[in-house]
Amino acid sequence: MIPNWLLQRAYLTPERTALVFNDQTWTFREMKDIVHELATKISGYSVSRQSRVAILVKNRQTTVFLIHALQSIGAEIVFLNSRLTASELSYQIKDSGSSVLLYDQDFYTTVKDLEYLSIDLNAYSIENIMTSSQKKLGNVRSDFDLDETCSIMYTSGTTGKPKGVRQTYGNHWWSATGSSLNLGLQENDAWLCAVPIFHISGLSILMRSVIYGIPVFLMEDFNEKQANLFLQSGKVTIMSVVTATLNRMLTDLQNEIYHENFRCMLLGGGPAPLPLLEKCAAKNIPVFQTYGMTETASQIVTLSPEDSFAKLGSAGKPLFPAQIKIVRTDGKAADARETGEIALKGPNITPGYLNQKHFLQDGWFLTGDLGYLDEDGFLYVQDRRSDLIISGGENVYPAEIEAVLIAHEAIDEAGVVGISDPTWGQVAYAFIVGKAFSEEELLQFCRERLASYKIPKRFIQVKELPRNAANKLVREKLRLLIEGIK
Amino acid sequence: MIPNWLLQRAYLTPERTALVFNDQTWTFREMKDIVHELATKISGYSVSRQSRVAILVKNRQTTVFLIHALQSIGAEIVFLNSRLTASELSYQIKDSGSSVLLYDQDFYTTVKDLEYLSIDLNAYSIENIMTSSQKKLGNVRSDFDLDETCSIMYTSGTTGKPKGVRQTYGNHWWSATGSSLNLGLQENDAWLCAVPIFHISGLSILMRSVIYGIPVFLMEDFNEKQANLFLQSGKVTIMSVVTATLNRMLTDLQNEIYHENFRCMLLGGGPAPLPLLEKCAAKNIPVFQTYGMTETASQIVTLSPEDSFAKLGSAGKPLFPAQIKIVRTDGKAADARETGEIALKGPNITPGYLNQKHFLQDGWFLTGDLGYLDEDGFLYVQDRRSDLIISGGENVYPAEIEAVLIAHEAIDEAGVVGISDPTWGQVAYAFIVGKAFSEEELLQFCRERLASYKIPKRFIQVKELPRNAANKLVREKLRLLIEGIK
Repeated sequence: MIPNWLLQRAYLTPERTALVFNDQTWTFREMKDIVHELATKISGYSVSRQSRVAILVKNRQTTVFLIHALQSIGAEIVFLNSRLTASELSYQIKDSGSSVLLYDQDFYTTVKDLEYLSIDLNAYSIENIMTSSQKKLGNVRSDFDLDETCSIMYTSGTTGKPKGVRQTYGNHWWSATGSSLNLGLQENDAWLCAVPIFHISGLSILMRSVIYGIPVFLMEDFNEKQANLFLQSGKVTIMSVVTATLNRMLTDLQNEIYHENFRCMLLGGGPAPLPLLEKCAAKNIPVFQTYGMTETASQIVTLSPEDSFAKLGSAGKPLFPAQIKIVRTDGKAADARETGEIALKGPNITPGYLNQKHFLQDGWFLTGDLGYLDEDGFLYVQDRRSDLIISGGENVYPAEIEAVLIAHEAIDEAGVVGISDPTWGQVAYAFIVGKAFSEEELLQFCRERLASYKIPKRFIQVKELPRNAANKLVREKLRLLIEGIK
Repeated sequence: MIPNWLLQRAYLTPERTALVFNDQTWTFREMKDIVHELATKISGYSVSRQSRVAILVKNRQTTVFLIHALQSIGAEIVFLNSRLTASELSYQIKDSGSSVLLYDQDFYTTVKDLEYLSIDLNAYSIENIMTSSQKKLGNVRSDFDLDETCSIMYTSGTTGKPKGVRQTYGNHWWSATGSSLNLGLQENDAWLCAVPIFHISGLSILMRSVIYGIPVFLMEDFNEKQANLFLQSGKVTIMSVVTATLNRMLTDLQNEIYHENFRCMLLGGGPAPLPLLEKCAAKNIPVFQTYGMTETASQIVTLSPEDSFAKLGSAGKPLFPAQIKIVRTDGKAADARETGEIALKGPNITPGYLNQKHFLQDGWFLTGDLGYLDEDGFLYVQDRRSDLIISGGENVYPAEIEAVLIAHEAIDEAGVVGISDPTWGQVAYAFIVGKAFSEEELLQFCRERLASYKIPKRFIQVKELPRNAANKLVREKLRLLIEGIK
């Protein structure tokens, strides 16, 4: 058991700034008061302890309040990616068994298409709830149980079928404290959140804010000009980015530099390319590369700036409470520089997916990613699990796209791979076997079924797909095909 | 489970400084190598997993190595206060069921008087073990179990009979991380340890060092000149003190000031007197007052410098993972400013004393101390449990001294109280009913049975002791008697 984080933070340091959004500022005390009122109102909407509540929200102050209110009630929060289509959303809401959907008014047109809840959805927008006169007394929890599920986020995994990852209060706690042991914690710290809150990268910033007692500077959408202004102001000391957003910031920054207070650019989504590191070094921008995923409640391995050139391409070393092991195909631990599956252990790792038992193997999470450790114990990630494509910080699973494509009447077979892209890090390319097709029609077909970031950038017709003896698609060889057509 | 702290730290940051002692320096990698060799040797001395090992040691580098070696083997460490007499030591060794005693050669004359171990004690001094050729392979643990007992320290409690407080790995972990959330953690941090390692104040510094990855500057004995030099050098950023040692440092410091890197004077053992706070404020010394005990694995409540004048006399607010409740005599929670027993809750609190069940009450540790919370939730400690006397940072229990005094043939009744003292914070005064006695003889009687810091500073003969209707000693009234004789 641990004290309710916001409650405890508002008790310990009530006058510290908790949140800055659109030039408005809230202290922890002010935030606690708003959250208590909101919790009281929400509990009038059939939300109670252990309710599962799906939320479809933007990066706004109301979302921060909503998350703390749901935690105070003790509801499990299902975070929906707002870029998903109605059919993708419906699947996750149904699969998670969410009893209620709370959403930002902006998403009303998306939400009204969901055949899911029989109630009048009008009442369930955050804006309506905040302004309602509902006053049913809610039970605000004084403690959190570290083993209890706090949040659920969907990830597609190897099968292409999205699975709900359970993140406990303990996962978030150990992630936050493990990170602070690595990055330190200073009195003037403030974290810029320009990544989506529905991602673990964004949610983890909100959790750290109350645990550390530091402000979050929240941006509704990423904007390189605004982000640069924050980093030049001296008000922000840490920011989470992916390669694509960092590139845009550097381009916008031109010959300027950041304020000396800025001490950590936390870069997720794969190792940084050398030119990017060189640009950052020239501007004295301390880049901490990280490896992590929804299942590890954000970063679990990090590379500090002083190692980034000597250990180029490495993801670094684990956070203090965590461990890495490389497992060979015969199940034994690999030697240094020997490739195998990356296995992780630590208290920040999910207890498992929804409706799934036996997640860990002897306490280890087998990531499906391939990599090795060098003789100093630095991790090198060689291939993401199931050919995971990371595009603009979003996970894209080839199997999921292939399943959609094959459903099209003109298509017999489909194979999808990620190709490196200067803007997005990676983008998806689709190889198709089947009748002649119009690209525009295929695009339209995909748009109805897939979030835009998942839609292949190119559709390439081939005679046959490379398969192995067991007739399994060999995605590695698809990349070779691309070399041919480039 | 959590990785073996020293092993993990030596893996993550091998080249950082771990320890500085008498101008010698060890990195975490060097310390790990020494500790592994030492663990191998110790395991040849009948020490293995879950052995209970008593240690009688000075503040030296070998003690730091020894503690990590015993942790790596998985032995439970019984820390003996080196100021205790042979009979006090014998009691604790026997009560704890320690199978082995390891000691610094300096204590040989003390140790040889202990009728306890049949083996040749000569071999069991740290110096002999370090230089032995013993090479039995020990099993160095890769993980610690947070629920496992790491250390045992004796405290006398209400009955006057010393009890062994079990401190788990989890207690130390949560204490260290809770403290870092409060004090922050900077890249240049270094902790000066001039308090005994056999106290939780000292041991907790060693645990923080490996968990945070920061150096400990270790002093064999407290010395105000040397301590001031460290704080003026800029090499030390945090130091743990008690009122008596801080006073001596300020006197020695005269008109000088500390280096700007020095950021935290962590003051234990009761609230600071106003003149001391004023002196520190004038010299820009940031004093963090703390409340804690062996049972809470060091500080659990702290007052930050910015509150020290507005909340004069307060012990502050709890660490983030901890909670305070004031319990009235009828068992209900007290209102603001209403006095009651101080109850504490948190993962840094001991699971209990040796050989004792049912320690916590509904998850709360009833300290026996009296106090209240003000309307902002700041704790004010009004009376330490069982009239605990804190003298130079050491706990002195009146009941223990009274029991010794009554054993003297000339004494019929004895009552002991703590009186404030400019040098030691508090000292013990003894009120005695009985035949005429020679003070010198009584002192000699005490010296054979009590550590020197427990020996009363004055023996005062009275006709009768103040007792209540139930014939129980009312120590409060003894203080009034002193007012009369001052």
